[in-house]
Amino acid sequence: MSRPRASHQDATPLKCEEPNRQAVISDGWQSNGYNPTVDAITPSPLGPPCDPPYTAVIFTSVRTHDDHGYQEASDRMFALAALQRGYLGVESARDPDSGLGITVSYWVDADCALAWKAVTEHARVQNQGRELWYREYVVRVATVERHYGM
Amino acid sequence: MSRPRASHQDATPLKCEEPNRQAVISDGWQSNGYNPTVDAITPSPLGPPCDPPYTAVIFTSVRTHDDHGYQEASDRMFALAALQRGYLGVESARDPDSGLGITVSYWVDADCALAWKAVTEHARVQNQGRELWYREYVVRVATVERHYGM
Repeated sequence: MSRPRASHQDATPLKCEEPNRQAVISDGWQSNGYNPTVDAITPSPLGPPCDPPYTAVIFTSVRTHDDHGYQEASDRMFALAALQRGYLGVESARDPDSGLGITVSYWVDADCALAWKAVTEHARVQNQGRELWYREYVVRVATVERHYGM
Repeated sequence: MSRPRASHQDATPLKCEEPNRQAVISDGWQSNGYNPTVDAITPSPLGPPCDPPYTAVIFTSVRTHDDHGYQEASDRMFALAALQRGYLGVESARDPDSGLGITVSYWVDADCALAWKAVTEHARVQNQGRELWYREYVVRVATVERHYGM
């Protein structure tokens, strides 16, 4: 799957499409009305091969020291997000020293991102996150207007 | 400096302003025509206390194994960015296992972000990055339309 390729100029035009879905659906995942024939994984560590405009949800957080259930829930949310309609990809990194984490998920449009926020299982995990795992977070919903890469 | 505070609803209105500048200018920094009386540091790990819309530049990268000069250049670029007109803040994290890093810088508008890209010293470091430090990267310029936090 090709990437944006333009070091100094505007982005190389690329067609916006949902990623190939290659994994196997696990029991208990909720598809929020979307019924993929196969499961979904992020196709690249560097987000969607997609023409702007598309939507980026920037989730920046500082963790607490409570790890109870965190990793399992996090893994599950990545997998569940990838099942949603309009999902394009995700990038995530956490600095082990500062505890600061940034996860950016990409969506065809803001409506798809908003629908993911409202998925029941996701909403439950968001509540757990506020109660247990995050000391502070900010969510920003943004429209990507151009991109370029190497 | 207050943060966005709204767990379930839209963002609490906050005035968009450049951060307080609290450090001391180091020799050799280039101010790109902007002449702050004091230097600049990021006021919070979670970005700008600012009403949308504002601009987010999402820089996602995968590092090479070449560390020569990287940390010094990186530190310098954070400090230099914070001197630029329209700078609002920055968030950055790198996963030590995957090597994936995400840096999101926030600007009053896209023109300010673009001006930072063109700063001579920054452009030189961007070239070094392409040649030495990054195996792959994507830059996305996005308009933040809403935000909320805890």
